[in-house]
Amino acid sequence: MRHRKKSWTEKELSENNTLISDATEYKGKWKEFFGNDNPIHIEIGCGKGGFITELSKRNADINYIGIEREKEIMAIALKRSRENGIGKNVAFAVTDAANLTECFEKGEVERIYLNFSDPWHRRKKWAKKRLTYRTFLAVYEQIFPSKGELFLKTDNKVLFESSLNEIADRGWRLHNITFDLHNSDYEGNIMTEYEKRFSELGQPIYRLEGYFNED
Amino acid sequence: MRHRKKSWTEKELSENNTLISDATEYKGKWKEFFGNDNPIHIEIGCGKGGFITELSKRNADINYIGIEREKEIMAIALKRSRENGIGKNVAFAVTDAANLTECFEKGEVERIYLNFSDPWHRRKKWAKKRLTYRTFLAVYEQIFPSKGELFLKTDNKVLFESSLNEIADRGWRLHNITFDLHNSDYEGNIMTEYEKRFSELGQPIYRLEGYFNED
Repeated sequence: MRHRKKSWTEKELSENNTLISDATEYKGKWKEFFGNDNPIHIEIGCGKGGFITELSKRNADINYIGIEREKEIMAIALKRSRENGIGKNVAFAVTDAANLTECFEKGEVERIYLNFSDPWHRRKKWAKKRLTYRTFLAVYEQIFPSKGELFLKTDNKVLFESSLNEIADRGWRLHNITFDLHNSDYEGNIMTEYEKRFSELGQPIYRLEGYFNED
Repeated sequence: MRHRKKSWTEKELSENNTLISDATEYKGKWKEFFGNDNPIHIEIGCGKGGFITELSKRNADINYIGIEREKEIMAIALKRSRENGIGKNVAFAVTDAANLTECFEKGEVERIYLNFSDPWHRRKKWAKKRLTYRTFLAVYEQIFPSKGELFLKTDNKVLFESSLNEIADRGWRLHNITFDLHNSDYEGNIMTEYEKRFSELGQPIYRLEGYFNED
């Protein structure tokens, strides 16, 4: 019987050494993993990895972990980063946002990026699935130090409105709220693949920063 | 020589007894003015008075003061309230928001309503004129008790965005932010004249609540 040939997706996922096959193994040991004491920033739902890869090039003194739930999409991020070259300050992991406390100890993640997360906007009862829902903010608080940052971009009004409320009601501070990122004063924006497509259609991009402070 | 007949505007302004001719006279004495200890809420830019009049009917245990800078518009509010009847828990004053500390002592105003205030949106340098600009928030803090509330409605995106930022950056808490009031869960909304016209055109109405807390 002939063995089925491994797909490129499976090959990438099993052989690419920027992929952390089990992120829970490094809980409490991320500084060892990166080999330095630099701050760690993560992107939840990094997709094809364009944003975090560019970010990691601009900020050599920050360590980045791109997290993606979908293996098939992660494989694209891995393939691209391998082909285009990638610094030692970026790694990828396949996991779900709900499992973050299994991967990170309190204080290990200083900033979280959410770019064009699934808005779950069509039904009110789906609000709980949004990555800025109170239960997710509570998870982020468990991996932040006493201060933590959440940077969010979206083209979805429902997600943006509910994110503002959830963050405000959780007692975090909001800052740099914009309803039209590409026509705002914000500098240094890195466009995601999704953002490029949508902004070309004239769709405004919303952005906010949320600041957790335990003190 | 024949005397010019007083216009109805002037007549209303000079004869209507719900108008406080000089609000600075009651600074520190508003409880005496109303004859009770009920909380005082004010609307800055009350226009023709429809909103505050309806609000005063719904909440007999709160005292309301409608503030309007334009005498001619105030006269319309006075005429309407006289013709339609008005409770003893509402009064009007012609003054400017910048002069609030001359009219109220610290602690005399517990809530401020801003409904469809001039957005000053066409030029960035006009941001300072917006009634949620930091200098105005600082004025409101001087007439609030240790806790105070600001309820804002607008159809203007620029005013809404800058209000969110100014309020958040001032360290106040935001709550009940909505990008489409008439399709939100918010109950008990009283439409202003302006709001009726704009919502009929399908224009979404933004709303927010800002909470000052000195502690």
